Amino acid sequence: MRTTVQELCELLGGTLAGDGSVTIDDVASPESATPDHIVYTASPAQYRRLEGHPGAVILDHETHEACPHAESDAPRILVEDPQAAFIQAMLHFRPPAPRQQTGISPHAFVDPSATIGEDCNIHPGAHIGPGVTLGKGCDIHPGVVIAADCRLGDNVTVYPNAVLYAGVSVGNRVIIHATAVIGADGFGYRLEQGRFAKIPHTGTVVLEDDVEIGAGTTVDRAMIGATVIGEGTKLDNQVMIAHNCQLGKHNAYASQVGFAGSVTTGDYVRCAGQVGVADHAHIGTGSTLGAKAGIRGTVPDGETYHGIPAGPEREQIKLHLTLRKVPEMRSQLGQLARQVQQLQDQIENLNDRRTGSAAA
Amino acid sequence: MRTTVQELCELLGGTLAGDGSVTIDDVASPESATPDHIVYTASPAQYRRLEGHPGAVILDHETHEACPHAESDAPRILVEDPQAAFIQAMLHFRPPAPRQQTGISPHAFVDPSATIGEDCNIHPGAHIGPGVTLGKGCDIHPGVVIAADCRLGDNVTVYPNAVLYAGVSVGNRVIIHATAVIGADGFGYRLEQGRFAKIPHTGTVVLEDDVEIGAGTTVDRAMIGATVIGEGTKLDNQVMIAHNCQLGKHNAYASQVGFAGSVTTGDYVRCAGQVGVADHAHIGTGSTLGAKAGIRGTVPDGETYHGIPAGPEREQIKLHLTLRKVPEMRSQLGQLARQVQQLQDQIENLNDRRTGSAAA
Amino acid sequence: MRTTVQELCELLGGTLAGDGSVTIDDVASPESATPDHIVYTASPAQYRRLEGHPGAVILDHETHEACPHAESDAPRILVEDPQAAFIQAMLHFRPPAPRQQTGISPHAFVDPSATIGEDCNIHPGAHIGPGVTLGKGCDIHPGVVIAADCRLGDNVTVYPNAVLYAGVSVGNRVIIHATAVIGADGFGYRLEQGRFAKIPHTGTVVLEDDVEIGAGTTVDRAMIGATVIGEGTKLDNQVMIAHNCQLGKHNAYASQVGFAGSVTTGDYVRCAGQVGVADHAHIGTGSTLGAKAGIRGTVPDGETYHGIPAGPEREQIKLHLTLRKVPEMRSQLGQLARQVQQLQDQIENLNDRRTGSAAA
Repeated sequence: MRTTVQELCELLGGTLAGDGSVTIDDVASPESATPDHIVYTASPAQYRRLEGHPGAVILDHETHEACPHAESDAPRILVEDPQAAFIQAMLHFRPPAPRQQTGISPHAFVDPSATIGEDCNIHPGAHIGPGVTLGKGCDIHPGVVIAADCRLGDNVTVYPNAVLYAGVSVGNRVIIHATAVIGADGFGYRLEQGRFAKIPHTGTVVLEDDVEIGAGTTVDRAMIGATVIGEGTKLDNQVMIAHNCQLGKHNAYASQVGFAGSVTTGDYVRCAGQVGVADHAHIGTGSTLGAKAGIRGTVPDGETYHGIPAGPEREQIKLHLTLRKVPEMRSQLGQLARQVQQLQDQIENLNDRRTGSAAA
Repeated sequence: MRTTVQELCELLGGTLAGDGSVTIDDVASPESATPDHIVYTASPAQYRRLEGHPGAVILDHETHEACPHAESDAPRILVEDPQAAFIQAMLHFRPPAPRQQTGISPHAFVDPSATIGEDCNIHPGAHIGPGVTLGKGCDIHPGVVIAADCRLGDNVTVYPNAVLYAGVSVGNRVIIHATAVIGADGFGYRLEQGRFAKIPHTGTVVLEDDVEIGAGTTVDRAMIGATVIGEGTKLDNQVMIAHNCQLGKHNAYASQVGFAGSVTTGDYVRCAGQVGVADHAHIGTGSTLGAKAGIRGTVPDGETYHGIPAGPEREQIKLHLTLRKVPEMRSQLGQLARQVQQLQDQIENLNDRRTGSAAA
Repeated sequence: MRTTVQELCELLGGTLAGDGSVTIDDVASPESATPDHIVYTASPAQYRRLEGHPGAVILDHETHEACPHAESDAPRILVEDPQAAFIQAMLHFRPPAPRQQTGISPHAFVDPSATIGEDCNIHPGAHIGPGVTLGKGCDIHPGVVIAADCRLGDNVTVYPNAVLYAGVSVGNRVIIHATAVIGADGFGYRLEQGRFAKIPHTGTVVLEDDVEIGAGTTVDRAMIGATVIGEGTKLDNQVMIAHNCQLGKHNAYASQVGFAGSVTTGDYVRCAGQVGVADHAHIGTGSTLGAKAGIRGTVPDGETYHGIPAGPEREQIKLHLTLRKVPEMRSQLGQLARQVQQLQDQIENLNDRRTGSAAA
């Protein structure tokens, strides 16, 4: 779908600079672009570093003004939000395939007592257990297992081999990626006469509207009530959310984050990769946890925490920078000890001489 | 199933305090309880904090004596072990569905050479390979794959989409959660002429009686003998146990713990989340590894280790508290250096004057 | 398959020491060997520690010369590379079952538009989507889902319940272990009016020739181009590789390693377990990242990095050893402060006396 930069510019609602008759046939990253591609840059520095020779560039007005341009430069489309415009261009060149209505495959297993909404696709090899309710327009991919009495809203997508244990509740427009497991038993035992007795987990999991769950991520069911993933919250791959956690809305956690039991969070919490949060901790609204942070207790609203155990960013940076000075401090300490010894000797000497002179 | 507190009290073998005619219809957590619910508390502090207005409370005698009660208070059931009594109450209000005998689904794939014990349920979409032996009363959920020649004991439950590679051995009453993988090849290669040559793994995995394996957990097969998970040991979700590990009995590891190859443990070892253990380490009986600990070498019996690299708890706490003092130490060090400089100046002065007075 | 040590020795191309008429019927680890077993040792220390009583030992010439031998000792096979010889012996006693040609199971789902190469085994319950191309000699195990338009080379093995999202490209001789997920969406959102808007991921994943992917490992698709796992690179279980990463050739990463987006690596990079690498980092050729290391920025070629945040091994060891001295430094600092105080008192005293004597 070759398109002139002029046409693209109109599509994106931008302002053209340079030759609008140049034609483009795809988007690309700055590193791999050829003259057939349009790219976007987020800063003057990135713009100047442009390695490939793209056919056109999307950028914002500030970047454009900050960079001088030659006649020979690639044409530019100036917009308010280059990333948003670039995504729009990407979808122009790579239009998503329209959703196919394949319906319920004869190779899927659907329990007769399940209720399936309109326009659902249930692919070969998917398993829908007894008493399950699906809303409208759901896509249940091959190998997915939805156990008894789960309730899914409208337009839910469950990718291959994901598993929902019995009784899990899923809102509208939720996306669950491949091999994610929702609703396995919480990890709870009582040590009775030297053996672990399993604590029954009669609770469930609630995924609210617009939640997205990454591949291989596990969200355990509560002991009594529900483990809740709040509206719009996004979990990356291989995240672990233990029993009874209550996550707020619009949280975003990167891969391999682990929450122990009964953690609560506010809204707009962000976790970088491999963060660990101890049981019963509370993470305040708008706070950010740095990569690999180890959290206990309470993180106040709006704070950024780093470290193991974690503390406020400023303290942690100061602590960390100071710790790097310890080898230097150690040699200073040695030197100081030697100086003090010398001073002691000198004073003793002075005292001796004084005594000597007094004695004289 | 509305029940009077009097009836519940008899069921739980407790002592009633307050109005036994109050009726209850479910258990709840202290935070979410209404007058229809019974809760339990584990301490006077928790009892006093009771936020909801539960219909009744299970607590122990000490807690009860420590807290004054008004006529208007919710009725109480006094017992020795409130958590155990609460679980019993939970199972009264939420009786587990009796195990259904669905037998071998025509939608399951069972190799003709497999041996299936009495009363097994093999659900639609499960796969039982050639030469597999299942004991009595096993539940093999949809999408489970049990490869050739695996041997399972009695009353084993394997949740959806879990995978057992060929030749794995599983004891009685073992529970394997969804998408767990038992018996994949150990991670071993030889670098030969610049390329990795795979080391064949002809060993297996043994899960002893009463083991529970969490969702997404992986236990790799040994190179020659067996990777062993000892009797009664419980692994949470997303735990990794590498080839040739020998875990003792009644260990319990929280989520995202990773053991490298050939680690051995005693009995009753506990790991908090995200612990990592290096290859060939030994973790002694009754020891505890704190969250995110990084372990090498040997952890003695009964010890608690923390930190990266980990050491005994007391040392680590002392070290950690001292490290927090380093910024303060640094300014003390600067001040001391200035003081020493001043002393040097004063002594020089004294010496000068002395020389002067001597010269005088 | 009982075999004399003499015969084994000829098979392994070694030199015999001791009684070659002894017969052996299996390999074993040094700890569990009986007189029926042959073992190997890698060092004199290990040789002397031999706990079991193996029937024979494979070792190298240096080890043999370093250890005295009695008439009664087990016969020895001397070779250049004991591990390689041992693997050969293992495959002699435990010959791998020949690959069975089972073809396309009638219980598999293969879309009519898929192209399946010669000699492929597609097992019951596997799912091959529309437009998929498989090369020759592939083994697609039960429960595997290969979504639309994936292209696999020759002799690819995909273990049970692994998932390939649409459009993924896989080279020759690639091995993908159970429940691995290749090609899920990268974790990218734009915060628009307080809600996360999903950034479409129209790119793909490329697994080059001879890659091996561990159980539960996830490799996300790129936003535009491809996330690339270079030729011969091996990923252990539960590894996470995020969108747009470009891994070089012959890398090897242990379990639970996590790479954030757009990381690039050279060749022969090694990561120990639970390493985390921040987005856009670069890991140079031949470098090694220690267990649990937290990496940002650039790791130069050939370096070994440790720590969180990580630095060169030598610096980190020095830093770490020095940090252990901080409690001691703190008490030195206190003592030094007292000494300085005493010196100050003494000098004051001297000054006083001087003034006094001057006044006298």
